[in-house]
Amino acid sequence: MSDNWKELVADKRKRQQDSIPREWLIKSPPSDQLDVTSIAAECGLLTDLEYEITELQDVAALLKRLATGELSSVDVTKAYYKRAIIAHQLTNCLTEIFVERALARAAELDEHLKTTGSPVGPLHGLPISLKDQIRLKGIETTMGYVSWIGNYAEHDAVLVEILYEAGAVPFVRTNVPQTLMWPETFNNVFGRTINPYNRSLTCGGSSGGEGALIALKGSPLGIGSDIGGSIRIPSAFNGLYGLRPSYGRVPYSGAANSLEGQDSIPSVFGPMTRSLSGIKAFMQAVIAGRPWSKDPLTIRKAWDNDAYQLSEHGHGKNLVFAILWDDGSVKPHPPILRGLEFAKKALLAAGHQVVDWKPYKHGEICANLGLIWSAGASEDYRTNVGQSGEPIIKSMNPNVLPDAPSFRPSNDGLSAYQLWQAQKDKTRLRKEYLDYWEASIHQTGTGRPIDAIISPVAAYAAPPHGMNKSAAYTMVWNALDYTALVIPLKMSVDPKTDVKILRDGFLGEDDQHAHFNSTFPLDDPQVYKNAPIALQVVGRTLEEEAVIGMSEVVDAAFKAHVGADAKL
Amino acid sequence: MSDNWKELVADKRKRQQDSIPREWLIKSPPSDQLDVTSIAAECGLLTDLEYEITELQDVAALLKRLATGELSSVDVTKAYYKRAIIAHQLTNCLTEIFVERALARAAELDEHLKTTGSPVGPLHGLPISLKDQIRLKGIETTMGYVSWIGNYAEHDAVLVEILYEAGAVPFVRTNVPQTLMWPETFNNVFGRTINPYNRSLTCGGSSGGEGALIALKGSPLGIGSDIGGSIRIPSAFNGLYGLRPSYGRVPYSGAANSLEGQDSIPSVFGPMTRSLSGIKAFMQAVIAGRPWSKDPLTIRKAWDNDAYQLSEHGHGKNLVFAILWDDGSVKPHPPILRGLEFAKKALLAAGHQVVDWKPYKHGEICANLGLIWSAGASEDYRTNVGQSGEPIIKSMNPNVLPDAPSFRPSNDGLSAYQLWQAQKDKTRLRKEYLDYWEASIHQTGTGRPIDAIISPVAAYAAPPHGMNKSAAYTMVWNALDYTALVIPLKMSVDPKTDVKILRDGFLGEDDQHAHFNSTFPLDDPQVYKNAPIALQVVGRTLEEEAVIGMSEVVDAAFKAHVGADAKL
Repeated sequence: MSDNWKELVADKRKRQQDSIPREWLIKSPPSDQLDVTSIAAECGLLTDLEYEITELQDVAALLKRLATGELSSVDVTKAYYKRAIIAHQLTNCLTEIFVERALARAAELDEHLKTTGSPVGPLHGLPISLKDQIRLKGIETTMGYVSWIGNYAEHDAVLVEILYEAGAVPFVRTNVPQTLMWPETFNNVFGRTINPYNRSLTCGGSSGGEGALIALKGSPLGIGSDIGGSIRIPSAFNGLYGLRPSYGRVPYSGAANSLEGQDSIPSVFGPMTRSLSGIKAFMQAVIAGRPWSKDPLTIRKAWDNDAYQLSEHGHGKNLVFAILWDDGSVKPHPPILRGLEFAKKALLAAGHQVVDWKPYKHGEICANLGLIWSAGASEDYRTNVGQSGEPIIKSMNPNVLPDAPSFRPSNDGLSAYQLWQAQKDKTRLRKEYLDYWEASIHQTGTGRPIDAIISPVAAYAAPPHGMNKSAAYTMVWNALDYTALVIPLKMSVDPKTDVKILRDGFLGEDDQHAHFNSTFPLDDPQVYKNAPIALQVVGRTLEEEAVIGMSEVVDAAFKAHVGADAKL
Repeated sequence: MSDNWKELVADKRKRQQDSIPREWLIKSPPSDQLDVTSIAAECGLLTDLEYEITELQDVAALLKRLATGELSSVDVTKAYYKRAIIAHQLTNCLTEIFVERALARAAELDEHLKTTGSPVGPLHGLPISLKDQIRLKGIETTMGYVSWIGNYAEHDAVLVEILYEAGAVPFVRTNVPQTLMWPETFNNVFGRTINPYNRSLTCGGSSGGEGALIALKGSPLGIGSDIGGSIRIPSAFNGLYGLRPSYGRVPYSGAANSLEGQDSIPSVFGPMTRSLSGIKAFMQAVIAGRPWSKDPLTIRKAWDNDAYQLSEHGHGKNLVFAILWDDGSVKPHPPILRGLEFAKKALLAAGHQVVDWKPYKHGEICANLGLIWSAGASEDYRTNVGQSGEPIIKSMNPNVLPDAPSFRPSNDGLSAYQLWQAQKDKTRLRKEYLDYWEASIHQTGTGRPIDAIISPVAAYAAPPHGMNKSAAYTMVWNALDYTALVIPLKMSVDPKTDVKILRDGFLGEDDQHAHFNSTFPLDDPQVYKNAPIALQVVGRTLEEEAVIGMSEVVDAAFKAHVGADAKL
């Protein structure tokens, strides 16, 4: 075995490079240029139309123009493909590139519309990027494992079948971390994906390829997966909207995955995009595709328009939002606190109520989740990584610091009986949290418990590579199976505003580590310069429709308040 | 420790005996009287009104009379309580008896109706029996474990909270097998429950107490649990309707259970009753109680009236039923085949289509389920049984035959990683089965796949004690999480009609064992004399509403055909 794996990687990388049309290569920006978000506009590769198409934010508006034939799918797909290739050259965000296949599909859709006068479905003509797990028939699925190089899929994932039926154009696949179980994006096959707002920072993970790609407007809508924050962290770190639906709402069948068979706190698929209308369009289209007839684990539950119109949340009037200022373990950094303060003011200004949310056993919930994942994780990793001889990645820090945080399992495995005890604990904690939420009915004065929680996505904005050491602010909602939608604040870290705060005490070791670290000044706003700021709106289990509806309310309040807030 | 457990049992049994009003004790029938279904009418304990009330079959009609005040809840509860105590003396079906508490609750409901003019909820005044797992605050929950004697519940199970809100009167708890994981009913605390149609036969299990009780009209509606057939087997063996809903439709939170934390193929609660209207009334009432606001594992999914009206099943016209004549492992005994033939004729006569259903990997599915359960089962049993010194029951055969079948785990436990592999296999098998079902669209000519499967509940009617050696005909639907509703055929085993068939070959060892057994003539119809015959209607995951709707169609077809079939 030995170093044979390196040859496999070299060959795979060469094949990837060869799949990029020569004429789409651009000149690299200087290596000390941290913010690369303006390159697409400057590099000269995009035509005016291509630039205009890819600058469109609103997915619903784009879908409308595609459905009427005002824009052709070929034009839209080509525009996004070129911009995706630009994004890739800047952040290394792509895995599989298949230009001809995507354009052929787009041409078929254009032909269908021309011939029949009708779009194929609700996502007609829309290019959609896919995390590297999501199998496309005939295309390799490596998911960042050297041992999976050469695995050509024999079937589309069920989600892809449904996207095809809805008229979408899957057009690229995107990078992931080895094992998927890390909130950054680096593996031995494709290397590291970086943050386009500041290339010295991580794009987050595990859906980090999507995050960097969509931030650079290389895709209008992408699909990530989230087991502990893997959609929400890269959404937040790259200034995007991203939805983590509850288990069983979006089909997973036929996709590749890590920790397969771990069904207790499983990964879910969900959309990442630059507009809330994209989140809604994706969820409506997928659910309209009756995924339960193709995936046995998807819940038979139609899109609920009453719930979307907030029938159980006062029809969107006088909502009560509970702000999680900290989770009891790590106090957020100044830019995140500024985001929470902004949210509070904006929501109050829009006529809603804001209360403080005291975290309930978040530490215990996250520890329980870690125990459940680690029950069989080491053996899973060994099985998939070990076959090729590639090393198991122990740190995503390029300098491999000795005290680098590790997301590797804390134990070498549990017995099934021990796992059951942990799962029993999880159910108890979920029951307690639900009761805790429901008990807030006595505080709101609306006759309802709080409508949603506004929570940080992480204690900090995108940190430097290898330093994203906790996913506690996202994992807790996975363990509880709550619906969570990330909203970007159109704010970013400003070292002048977001000055270091002198803490006169810490919540504990993790808090201290996040604010004072011997190897890296984790609370130095200069480090985070230009990193986007985002928050998440959290609803209860299977409240996808209502969380989207409430997020529209929140997003409108935020947008209305931007001008009003003098600080911004 | 030693034999101390026997003292605990003796005390518990004495307390149970003392909880029965002296004046409700009846004379025992002769021990050779196998059928005890006529004793209630003959024993003289019931008044005419009490007899009339308990003879009412239709739960919806009973609920109407309770809601209007035509019958008082006290009268109905007292009538059913007396008949339950009769049933208990004949079959040993009860565990917890609390007459005064139930009558006090009933009196409160009567008072409410009198004062307000409105019923408390959709189950106003209805006495409901509960399997011994379902905790009632202040009452012991032993669930058949000696070590749990003296465990008084501090909280009601969530299901009980919802039943209270709906106006029901929980009035007795019912017997179970040790560990719950056995399709008969025998434990060291309460002993054995027997079949009222033929006391030499098992009542089935694990909800066997409910089965015997409701068959003897000692309860209008009971709640059982089903992890591998535990609602459906006693429903079939005692001639009842019984529904096994999909996971997450009826709340389990706060109930006691076996194998806690085993969330992959979990137990579910569901109704058992003598009328289909009882199944519907229970499911509608529980779902209307918004159980997802109290139980985090219950799915946020309202009662779907369109689905109940068969909007996705041709509105109940020209339905296509697929008959499972055998599961590929064990061919059903003659009485069950007679039931299937009857079903076919009745459904054809009612204008529906009937096709044959070829089983798809039923053996592999059941083996996979066994592996998942056994992953931590031994340790679970040791933990709960071992504490008191009571022996783990190895056979439910009173003669403890050396080759007695055992439902004990086939291995001493798996690692969590091994369990995950088994769970991965389960998901694969569920996907394959769903595709197999959906593919039937090409055979039906209706533009839909088959609407439902008509399946045996077991390969035989209720067998002698200790001989119920397989639950394969029910377990397969648990593994697939399909909705399954048992319909009794108003037919029973008749040794003259159901003559032994000479088999000229067997499907395998299990088939041979079921038809020729050195220690017991398992295919001798004389043995099964008077045992009820039933079938199950099987729909897909989360099709509770549609399966109830289709079962009404099936039940009507069966009832219409009884006179038409000369053989009956």
